[in-house]
Amino acid sequence: MSPGPAAPVPYLVGTGSALPGDPVDNERLAGLIGASAAWIDDFTGTKTRHFASDLSTGAPTHKLADLCHEAAEAALADARLDASDIGFVVLGTATPDHLMPATVNLVADLLGIGHVPTYQLQSGCVGAVQALDLACRVLRDPETDRSGATGLVIGADICNKHLLLDRDFSRLAPGELVNYMLFGDGAGAVVVSREPLGHRTAIRRVLNRFVGLGQSPGQVIEWFGLADRDQGRPAAKEDYKAIENNVPRLAEEVVCELADDLGWDLDKIDYLLPPQLSGRMTGLIVDRIGVPATEVSCVDTTGNNGNALPFLQLGRLLPLLRDGDRALCAAVESSKWLKGGLALEKESIS
Amino acid sequence: MSPGPAAPVPYLVGTGSALPGDPVDNERLAGLIGASAAWIDDFTGTKTRHFASDLSTGAPTHKLADLCHEAAEAALADARLDASDIGFVVLGTATPDHLMPATVNLVADLLGIGHVPTYQLQSGCVGAVQALDLACRVLRDPETDRSGATGLVIGADICNKHLLLDRDFSRLAPGELVNYMLFGDGAGAVVVSREPLGHRTAIRRVLNRFVGLGQSPGQVIEWFGLADRDQGRPAAKEDYKAIENNVPRLAEEVVCELADDLGWDLDKIDYLLPPQLSGRMTGLIVDRIGVPATEVSCVDTTGNNGNALPFLQLGRLLPLLRDGDRALCAAVESSKWLKGGLALEKESIS
Repeated sequence: MSPGPAAPVPYLVGTGSALPGDPVDNERLAGLIGASAAWIDDFTGTKTRHFASDLSTGAPTHKLADLCHEAAEAALADARLDASDIGFVVLGTATPDHLMPATVNLVADLLGIGHVPTYQLQSGCVGAVQALDLACRVLRDPETDRSGATGLVIGADICNKHLLLDRDFSRLAPGELVNYMLFGDGAGAVVVSREPLGHRTAIRRVLNRFVGLGQSPGQVIEWFGLADRDQGRPAAKEDYKAIENNVPRLAEEVVCELADDLGWDLDKIDYLLPPQLSGRMTGLIVDRIGVPATEVSCVDTTGNNGNALPFLQLGRLLPLLRDGDRALCAAVESSKWLKGGLALEKESIS
Repeated sequence: MSPGPAAPVPYLVGTGSALPGDPVDNERLAGLIGASAAWIDDFTGTKTRHFASDLSTGAPTHKLADLCHEAAEAALADARLDASDIGFVVLGTATPDHLMPATVNLVADLLGIGHVPTYQLQSGCVGAVQALDLACRVLRDPETDRSGATGLVIGADICNKHLLLDRDFSRLAPGELVNYMLFGDGAGAVVVSREPLGHRTAIRRVLNRFVGLGQSPGQVIEWFGLADRDQGRPAAKEDYKAIENNVPRLAEEVVCELADDLGWDLDKIDYLLPPQLSGRMTGLIVDRIGVPATEVSCVDTTGNNGNALPFLQLGRLLPLLRDGDRALCAAVESSKWLKGGLALEKESIS
């Protein structure tokens, strides 16, 4: 078979984020859940997080669509593009505003983007990679014409439907209490394009893989319907032992596989974007991976906001990159065990 | 630019379905909700539906993952392929078993499929088209190697978390009562491939488009969290007036655009797969489209089971197709208004 024209390269060209309200520090959180700030700090390594709720009343202050809209507008401005340039929209989230309509369509409406394909992935900590995977496939699709050559990719989560503040925290099992310390709300977005506009950072490789065959879920988050809402089941469960055992190893596998596939020397990677479970876990992971790259993390100030996190890391990374710089991003989802990663390289102007 | 090798053609090669329990006829349903069977029949045109619940107790009998597993196994058998041949899995649903893990990964686990990309779209009546859109993009992606050249695409919905049977139906607003008459549970699946195996039915075109800019949602389905589960809000709302006004027109647009794009003569389309809102609405839509093609519908016996429906129609269509036969499928989602469609052609053996 004779080689045809090379597949289009997908580029990250703009980035934006939205974090609701003021940062909530460990003092404030400790007061709410009856723990000590020092213990939260020690246990999680996370200093602040944001909540899309008023912590004095528990009332929601933002919808997921609002945060996505704000992050997307910022990403468009960063890319110096307009909503009318966008040919498709992808959203990854575990916590949509409704089951239907998909929040991505509410966001498209807020942005004034119509008559394009939209996709919403039900996803967790690997969701940002899955959403970028899908976007890259759209950009590389030979049937995608010029009108589809630029897209918007968003990751966001809000946990306030599960945020119960009027409970007796002293009776809560540690596994449930920890959810209040680790998680936060937020949205991140990137503009992707076939053209090396804006940050002109090429996505050289995407790794997106389900690896949980035969393994119990490490994280379960429930939704309730009219019929099962009174059963008193917990809304979220984590198997922290399994997470501690598996995530550093899986993150290391991602980094090694990406570098190996591309023939990149791990000692010459410029930036590493590790998984952002908590400040403490991220530290352990970076130690395990042990490459000399500069770490780009944000979880210690943003909290774990799921699908948003890798976009927030990209938001910090892209302005740092100089021509030819390389970065590896790893994400691990403990739900039913997925691993994901991105290999990025800032294109030199030739 | 010199033309490279043509993009791979995606084929539908196998199909399967899963409908839980015995069909529930209008007599049985009328007894449950205190209506008359003749009125249900007249109002909806739907004769039977299936529920993943025991209607005498309300207890769930199937999980979404179970139905997806059953449909996927049937599709693999129909394609004479094995789980080990599958390089990616896509699921479209509005009603996942949990927020996390994504049900697609539970299904992959049940099937014994690991180390592949998985995607779960949060989607409604256009979900089957969106899932096939994504699958086609994976198959056409120049970076998809042989191991990714065959995939499994599933659509499924179960409404039993919202199925309240112990309520006073005589006090229910008609708009809520009608949900009990229209909807049902089920799963459908297809195997897709770059190779013209099995049913060797080429997907010549996919149309997937958000068209609801500035329009109110025609359907809203809520999920509840710990914090908002006691607010007594209804779980599902439909704007039937808007649905009646918009869906036939949008379905007609899909059929005309697909035929026009491909230069297909509408009078020579062999089969038409219209949207499956209810038996009655489907009849109205077919009348409006007014092409002489043979209609392939199933909603009158399956009920409206959302993401499953177009797969159930494909399950009826594929065995009917002879070499060179052409079919058009239209789907419309009233949530925030999406339209979707497929143009299919059975490849002749040359």
